[in-house]
Amino acid sequence: MLGWFSLSPSLSWPRKIPRLLCCAIVLLVITGPSAGGFTPSSFLRPGQLSNVDLNEDISELETELPRPYPNEIPHNEKLLSLKYESLDYDNSENQLFLEEERRINHAAFRTVEIKRWVICAMIGILTGLVACFIDIVVENLAGLKYRVVKDNIDKFTEKGGLSFSLLLWATLNAGVVMVGSVIVAFIEPVAAGSGIPQIKCYLNGVKIPHVVRLKTLVIKVCGVILSVVGGLAVGKEGPMIHSGAVIAAGISQGRSTSLKRDFKIFEYFRRDTEKRDFVSAGAAAGVSAAFGAPVGGVLFSLEEGASFWNQFLTWRIFFASMISTFTLNSVLSVYHGNAWDLSSPGLINFGRFDSEKMGYTIQEIPIFIFMGVVGGILGALFNALNYWLTMFRIRYIHRPCLQVIEAMLVAAVTAAVGFVMIYCSRDCQPIQGSSVAYPLQLFCADGEYNSMATAFFNTPEKSVVNLFHDPPGSYNPMTLGMFTLMYFFLACWTYGLTVSAGVFIPSLLIGAAWGRLFGISLSYLTKGSIWADPGKYALMGAAAQLGGIVRMTLSLTVIMMEATGNVTYGFPIMLVLMTAKIVGDYFVEGLYDMHIQLQSVPFLHWEAPVTSHSLTAREVMSTPVTCLRRIERVGTVVDILSDTSSNHNGFPVVESNPNTTQVGLGLSAYPMLLLKDFRDAYPRFPPIQSIHVSQDERECMIDLSEFMNPSPYTVPQEASLPRVFKLFRALGLRHLVVVNNHNEVVGMVTRKDLARYRLGKEGLEELSLAQT
Amino acid sequence: MLGWFSLSPSLSWPRKIPRLLCCAIVLLVITGPSAGGFTPSSFLRPGQLSNVDLNEDISELETELPRPYPNEIPHNEKLLSLKYESLDYDNSENQLFLEEERRINHAAFRTVEIKRWVICAMIGILTGLVACFIDIVVENLAGLKYRVVKDNIDKFTEKGGLSFSLLLWATLNAGVVMVGSVIVAFIEPVAAGSGIPQIKCYLNGVKIPHVVRLKTLVIKVCGVILSVVGGLAVGKEGPMIHSGAVIAAGISQGRSTSLKRDFKIFEYFRRDTEKRDFVSAGAAAGVSAAFGAPVGGVLFSLEEGASFWNQFLTWRIFFASMISTFTLNSVLSVYHGNAWDLSSPGLINFGRFDSEKMGYTIQEIPIFIFMGVVGGILGALFNALNYWLTMFRIRYIHRPCLQVIEAMLVAAVTAAVGFVMIYCSRDCQPIQGSSVAYPLQLFCADGEYNSMATAFFNTPEKSVVNLFHDPPGSYNPMTLGMFTLMYFFLACWTYGLTVSAGVFIPSLLIGAAWGRLFGISLSYLTKGSIWADPGKYALMGAAAQLGGIVRMTLSLTVIMMEATGNVTYGFPIMLVLMTAKIVGDYFVEGLYDMHIQLQSVPFLHWEAPVTSHSLTAREVMSTPVTCLRRIERVGTVVDILSDTSSNHNGFPVVESNPNTTQVGLGLSAYPMLLLKDFRDAYPRFPPIQSIHVSQDERECMIDLSEFMNPSPYTVPQEASLPRVFKLFRALGLRHLVVVNNHNEVVGMVTRKDLARYRLGKEGLEELSLAQT
Repeated sequence: MLGWFSLSPSLSWPRKIPRLLCCAIVLLVITGPSAGGFTPSSFLRPGQLSNVDLNEDISELETELPRPYPNEIPHNEKLLSLKYESLDYDNSENQLFLEEERRINHAAFRTVEIKRWVICAMIGILTGLVACFIDIVVENLAGLKYRVVKDNIDKFTEKGGLSFSLLLWATLNAGVVMVGSVIVAFIEPVAAGSGIPQIKCYLNGVKIPHVVRLKTLVIKVCGVILSVVGGLAVGKEGPMIHSGAVIAAGISQGRSTSLKRDFKIFEYFRRDTEKRDFVSAGAAAGVSAAFGAPVGGVLFSLEEGASFWNQFLTWRIFFASMISTFTLNSVLSVYHGNAWDLSSPGLINFGRFDSEKMGYTIQEIPIFIFMGVVGGILGALFNALNYWLTMFRIRYIHRPCLQVIEAMLVAAVTAAVGFVMIYCSRDCQPIQGSSVAYPLQLFCADGEYNSMATAFFNTPEKSVVNLFHDPPGSYNPMTLGMFTLMYFFLACWTYGLTVSAGVFIPSLLIGAAWGRLFGISLSYLTKGSIWADPGKYALMGAAAQLGGIVRMTLSLTVIMMEATGNVTYGFPIMLVLMTAKIVGDYFVEGLYDMHIQLQSVPFLHWEAPVTSHSLTAREVMSTPVTCLRRIERVGTVVDILSDTSSNHNGFPVVESNPNTTQVGLGLSAYPMLLLKDFRDAYPRFPPIQSIHVSQDERECMIDLSEFMNPSPYTVPQEASLPRVFKLFRALGLRHLVVVNNHNEVVGMVTRKDLARYRLGKEGLEELSLAQT
Repeated sequence: MLGWFSLSPSLSWPRKIPRLLCCAIVLLVITGPSAGGFTPSSFLRPGQLSNVDLNEDISELETELPRPYPNEIPHNEKLLSLKYESLDYDNSENQLFLEEERRINHAAFRTVEIKRWVICAMIGILTGLVACFIDIVVENLAGLKYRVVKDNIDKFTEKGGLSFSLLLWATLNAGVVMVGSVIVAFIEPVAAGSGIPQIKCYLNGVKIPHVVRLKTLVIKVCGVILSVVGGLAVGKEGPMIHSGAVIAAGISQGRSTSLKRDFKIFEYFRRDTEKRDFVSAGAAAGVSAAFGAPVGGVLFSLEEGASFWNQFLTWRIFFASMISTFTLNSVLSVYHGNAWDLSSPGLINFGRFDSEKMGYTIQEIPIFIFMGVVGGILGALFNALNYWLTMFRIRYIHRPCLQVIEAMLVAAVTAAVGFVMIYCSRDCQPIQGSSVAYPLQLFCADGEYNSMATAFFNTPEKSVVNLFHDPPGSYNPMTLGMFTLMYFFLACWTYGLTVSAGVFIPSLLIGAAWGRLFGISLSYLTKGSIWADPGKYALMGAAAQLGGIVRMTLSLTVIMMEATGNVTYGFPIMLVLMTAKIVGDYFVEGLYDMHIQLQSVPFLHWEAPVTSHSLTAREVMSTPVTCLRRIERVGTVVDILSDTSSNHNGFPVVESNPNTTQVGLGLSAYPMLLLKDFRDAYPRFPPIQSIHVSQDERECMIDLSEFMNPSPYTVPQEASLPRVFKLFRALGLRHLVVVNNHNEVVGMVTRKDLARYRLGKEGLEELSLAQT
């Protein structure tokens, strides 16, 4: 019967406490923990835990007791941070929620459904437009820069003094990158990097502060334009995924915190469940716009986010992806003057790989697998280098101005390396018949251009496509080798800078370069067999290198397949990616996972570690758990909720009767979301301390039935870890109450309790927990 | 503490009852219900509930009390049958299971993982080979038939007496179809139809007897060859999905019931969880082989089967799909003489749709949407006609010989209709430059052929491709109109015959025909605009018609995209399929869902009906539930398990102490699967009646701790239906125990309790339950 009582009449319910206040108390304080001393900070760059950021957060949270926080954050792989909250994918079925749901009839549900579709269409359109904007701006600015530098080099080649050209180039790059780095470091540090790790975490159910704000989007878009124009070894594709996610979160909530505008629409979707669904769609739309891969986008979202496959949701996600590709394609085709050509479905397009011209035979499959091995090893090397670099950065480069200086340094070095390599290169190619955008003659004969210069005087996207499709003989093996080597180190140094940029394209470029080199060598060895087309090997090398670095599987295969526009290449690409992943995993983790782990994020993988059957819920759970009684003194509620040491964010409500305390039911922040007034506050609720409760009010009794979830999911304490994990993961829970056979609460399982167990080299290992 | 006791020493445990026997008793009888009077019968054709079939089942089950069963099965939409059991996707964590899992160390898990990959590769290879076999045999036999008939017609055209040709053609067709129909009707009725509804049910978690047996595969393959060669309006693609599933089930279990061979390998995979995962992979491999659509195959499996998305599983499924396409492609390329061309990745290949030649503009989108509406209406009409036909068949044509006669009749009529249409057609086309395989001159001038004849003198797959790619002007509008009309009715009549055949290709063909007609009309109206290429409209028409009939969404879009090999067509195809589904759903259900419902299968959709929040577990659950005590008399156990009126297949085990009966834990068939000896029997266990228990033995006490799942999932009785549904569906459960606040068992929720609620025209409706 519990859970359906209204207020018991024997209790003195003081009319003077408005019901709303009570709700507020219950809710707000439950949300409180993040206000209680753990400082929510930005995600990716720990060094950026700057004063600016902190002060902002603290003032925002109006906390009165800012605890001292350590200057240096103890980052290491064996640690889980308690500062990250979980999203809740499970609707709390409290009385208010049920009342609302039951009020809604069939027709109203249809309206909600139609709204969902409209939102997805808008997500697709806006994501496509943002991608167009980035593409067009980058193309124009980069073109301008290349023209200026080229003219300058051309001028000084004649009359000597090329060091001025170098200076000009390096200064231009460093200046542009400085702006890009400053806005990221000082305004919104969460916009740094590709954003893919953050979106992975968000879809996994981890709340990362600021990650889906409008401000983040603006900084991200400007940042990525500046990084690419600044000539860094970066791509603009990864950030599209983050951009799509922000757009989705913004539209689906019908308001913007950054702009402080609330359009009062789509209020039904202001809950974690719905928001996360839309963010999935946004991420998919981003992938779709970046690579012209709508199916790949859907699979990316599912691979990273889905806990429970839902057909309608997937269909909507696909719709958003399609619209996004279509929008990008249409706008770009109009922009490029051949309206409705619809042949450039993504920011990068690998060009058509024709089966007839570039087919492969079964004998080549072992060669591809070997390339996968090479890609796995090189990828692991990349990740290991980047790991050391990241540790160095965490220790020594955590002030924003240092970060900006590092970014500028990298930009200047990139220009210098490019310049030196162009200068030293003697690889001249006839200009006739080539499609080079900014041919640099330098020391070549008239009618020829410097082949190395094309690799640097191009956006990386174009270089990749050139490596795939330029006819055999376009590149000198020496050029390719030097380029691979330098670009490898530059890209590795660049990833993790405080700029907004992605790692997809640099990886593809490195891979394409050594793949093409490999193809040329093979051609030499086999004395120019017809099948040794270097472009084909460039493609496989690109796949191997990218797979070795990021270790994505299904979605990456499909993205590559869609980007090449050829189904028959699917099989070798899959083999290459699989090999690269297996080989790479043998050494170190994937780049994204590595960065997530360095942040100590409680990330839940797909399954519990295979050997964890010996652990039971009793050993895993947090205990003791603070419980509330169903009818409780307001003072007690306030005290318990204010106590930041009880950091579960959810409190079982128990019925106390003479014999035994039985489980009442999980209570948590979300019940309140369903009160109209609290929808407005979602997802940032003021802390409990901001509400004043008088001594009189403290003595009142409050019936929590209305606010609690009367049927939370529970597990018996004997359940094994894999079983608990499966329930938690499949349903996207935030709290799972552990009970004994008498249905008494004995503990609580939250995300960190499950994320703590990991399969290490020597079997199951347990990570420590840290408050920072 | 419950669940971890070993045998209590105070109890007299008689050594003379071997532990195994006890297990056997517990297990077998629990599995018993299907032996208890509900006759498991074949799935698709209810009329086929023949004596042959029944007797076989009864003798197989060795039941002693065959209850009278009704002669006519009360089929209607508002009924759920209790005869279908659920698969269990949740591993029961009984003591034996845990002991086994804990014994397995990390290395052993790796071996298991490698085995899974090997099995998936084998599934892919075998599915590809089966597809090749079907393709090659069909091509040769059909070629032979067409040559014979063509020669005959050519002969009699000269000297008159074409009625002999008609007779020859009709007899040939009817004869071939008779063989195909006889093997299905008399040997394995479950092989009838496309098999997609059955696989949908299996992946949904419903146990359909015989559906994944080797015998079914053999009959299916022979049946589909004979149906296609017999000239019926059918395709060979749908059955590939079923074939893949059977191959997967067979390989993964390492044995065959039909062959009575057990290879003693892969014994770890003998449980519902693993088997279903492999069957998903098999179905995906089937789609992949049929359409050359590996990604579409994965999405098909996920759309139909996945409850919980698992990355590794999906990756394996994709691997199987890829291997299957690759195998088919390689073998066919060698067979066709152009080794390693790898350009025919599937049984049907729509040919390349080049963006340049057949691009579309944004103005055409409304036209495509209109075609979607037409497809939706025509699809609904098709389904409605087929519904009436199926009801008729259920009532009057349920004897195998009648079914065979009907199939022969359809074959003869198809030939006759084709003949009459060819005879009446005056649509002559120049033979020069056309790629017609069997050009029939008939009454055309020399150097010309009868265009109508190409449509009938071709396998439907080739006709589809011709309609897509033949240059404008190849078809006379009159020919297309007549062809659409006749083929529509023939296909509708054919679907549901007792032959093994699919509906994909006929649907595509109907759609392609009216789509092309539509394109031609449009071309007339717009006075031959450049963009009105009839092939493009044929493609959209085909998509619209297929979507209107089967109502698949995501997977169908991707299948069509992959089959056309063009990403830019994805957007209009998606719009067309979406429109067709929305319009079609307004009238009647999809064809597969309709047939599933006519079989009264308790099929669980993705979500509970939207307006079901007002129902709670208490109202939904089955009650009363027969419980067992943890330490129980053997006699009681035997009696309870033998009692067929308690048909849950799972019994909560409770602890009885003076105060209150608390929930012990769900016990069901599966605990026993983990005993080595029972693995051999999986999934067909002998009934309890086959075990003799003496009076002495009946008095012994048995401790059920070892056999029960000590931590079953439970829900409080206040939980709402959507909540219960979500838990049940997400975890793939078979039983869900409902408890009150004192953790006492109050009821049990099984599949039928959830499948019973449906959103009808007037809101929530409840289906009745029937024992047949």
